[in-house]
Amino acid sequence: MISKATAMVFTNKDAPFKKEEVLIRDIDNNEVLVRIAYTTICTSDLHTHSGRRSSACPSVLGHEIIGEIITLGKKIKADYNGQLLKVGDLVTWCVYAYDSKSEMAKKGMPQKSEGLYKYGHHQFTAEDGLNGGFATHCVLKKGTAIFKLPEFLSHRQAAPLNCTHATIAGAMRVAGYLSDKNVMITGTGMLGLSACAMAKESGARSVTAMDINNERLEFAKNFGADKLVDGKLSTDEIRLLFKNEKVDVIIDTTGIPQVMETGLELLAIGGTAVWIGAVYNQPATNINAEMVVRNLLTIKGLHNYTPDDLGFAIDFVAKNHAKYPFELLVGEEFILDDLSVAFDVAASGKYYRVGIRQ
Amino acid sequence: MISKATAMVFTNKDAPFKKEEVLIRDIDNNEVLVRIAYTTICTSDLHTHSGRRSSACPSVLGHEIIGEIITLGKKIKADYNGQLLKVGDLVTWCVYAYDSKSEMAKKGMPQKSEGLYKYGHHQFTAEDGLNGGFATHCVLKKGTAIFKLPEFLSHRQAAPLNCTHATIAGAMRVAGYLSDKNVMITGTGMLGLSACAMAKESGARSVTAMDINNERLEFAKNFGADKLVDGKLSTDEIRLLFKNEKVDVIIDTTGIPQVMETGLELLAIGGTAVWIGAVYNQPATNINAEMVVRNLLTIKGLHNYTPDDLGFAIDFVAKNHAKYPFELLVGEEFILDDLSVAFDVAASGKYYRVGIRQ
Repeated sequence: MISKATAMVFTNKDAPFKKEEVLIRDIDNNEVLVRIAYTTICTSDLHTHSGRRSSACPSVLGHEIIGEIITLGKKIKADYNGQLLKVGDLVTWCVYAYDSKSEMAKKGMPQKSEGLYKYGHHQFTAEDGLNGGFATHCVLKKGTAIFKLPEFLSHRQAAPLNCTHATIAGAMRVAGYLSDKNVMITGTGMLGLSACAMAKESGARSVTAMDINNERLEFAKNFGADKLVDGKLSTDEIRLLFKNEKVDVIIDTTGIPQVMETGLELLAIGGTAVWIGAVYNQPATNINAEMVVRNLLTIKGLHNYTPDDLGFAIDFVAKNHAKYPFELLVGEEFILDDLSVAFDVAASGKYYRVGIRQ
Repeated sequence: MISKATAMVFTNKDAPFKKEEVLIRDIDNNEVLVRIAYTTICTSDLHTHSGRRSSACPSVLGHEIIGEIITLGKKIKADYNGQLLKVGDLVTWCVYAYDSKSEMAKKGMPQKSEGLYKYGHHQFTAEDGLNGGFATHCVLKKGTAIFKLPEFLSHRQAAPLNCTHATIAGAMRVAGYLSDKNVMITGTGMLGLSACAMAKESGARSVTAMDINNERLEFAKNFGADKLVDGKLSTDEIRLLFKNEKVDVIIDTTGIPQVMETGLELLAIGGTAVWIGAVYNQPATNINAEMVVRNLLTIKGLHNYTPDDLGFAIDFVAKNHAKYPFELLVGEEFILDDLSVAFDVAASGKYYRVGIRQ
């Protein structure tokens, strides 16, 4: 029986991570202990580490995690889909534990439940130290939707499932049917690439990617983008490029007001904009409300996702892992001890993701 | 057979209407000739007349109209609901004629069809002079959804159906289920009052009305408003008033950026704002996109309505005509010859509506 784990603790903006030994406490009947197999550094980890996002501190960051079951609580028999769980299974899980009886969960927004427990976001304490991805182990709390991973998925393919791909699955859900629609994805980071691929597989007539980074834009072709738009073009120049063909659905992963404004101007009558990128403080987005009204536009904000979205994301990547190069999204990987170096590399923006293998 | 009609022609911003004799042409098989029974002056008629809204000119304004069938085209057998039509029937109709085979109609937005023909908005010509409400007759073009009116509705109750109440029916459709929700209506003009009543009858837990005009606000109680909010209060003051209870759905009839901004701030997580008032040029609405994302907000713009919305509105007013004082919304009425005076009275803002009886 393992009794000690290692956690890399975030203590201070831009400071190196501090390696701590953590005693593994006994898990209760509704918990699961996992040995972490792989974690990818998400952009929001970088935001926290650089001080752009306020977060609990000290803490164990990292939430794009997969792990192997070490100990199963007595009451945990199966995963969210009803598949039996056993010690040794490789699993992913929702970035949060929630109470399914909470008001928000009943309203279909479990990610906004009262008393939500978010992995990679919680205060690090002696009693509760294994709650993030940059550690050897993680304790999955009661109310965590766990999913057994298909065996053929690599760690690099699977780690970003429970953040990037699940969030995009949520965006697809709120965007509605994409079949035969012109879809535009603004921003071609991890979220944007995932959105291109999911839109393509949802039967979109066309998938247009937009970014100011030409290299990333070109790479989006590998994820199903049919058309590429230089984000430095004006709205009128983009319209010319489109030969006045309108966009039915826009998924914004940038959170940049000007990009979201341009997006609304490109939408067809009855079009929908799904905003998921605006998760940081920024100037106001200036909206022409008359245009929203006369063009019957819809704007939908989405933050995080539901367990069903994560289930959809897993099925999606499982089905399409050979079609789209998910594997390549992790550009370099490090061991846990080198986490501080890994963060520096990740912050350079050279790769979509940097991985921590164990 | 009547061969001549009278139209009051809008010729110039703020100018008196010009009385013109119009030859009634033979109608074709898909048209209906009606003798206009009653027309109410809509706020958008005032906008056109005062030059705030650009419009075809010369034209016959007026689109909140009801009329009696004088001649039925050979192919017009029944109304939109399938009720048989005959000469002498009192009817209302959609403010537009559309092609049901058009792309936009197939997408569920007939009001945005290519080549839409809008009553009260078209150029007045010798050949096509009977296309607005401020005339003795109107020719209903092919593609106009016509509805037979219940006999027990008064002209004052029925005239605003095909603009005010149908637009609010559309807003209810896009707002989704209101059952057990806290609904807020911003603006208590005609649209706002109709929205209060429809929200109430849709099972809203509470209906809050907001306006800067205290007299209109008080009057909203007669249309189902449970709570009244002085529109001059700050967002924080309103929150205090609400004891932090959030709003699930907001229907904005004002089109005022500051009001729409406040509305979004009052919304609960997962809340929806339906904008219908912003049909005129105005400064940008400044949106905190992070709030939209983190709070999973939805913003939906709606302009005009579908034939089904008009059907819903007619059923609604028919069912509730004794419960809510729709009759009182027409404050004063005039004959067609006195249209210029009627417009002056309407522009004074003294009444919700001014009527033109014939």
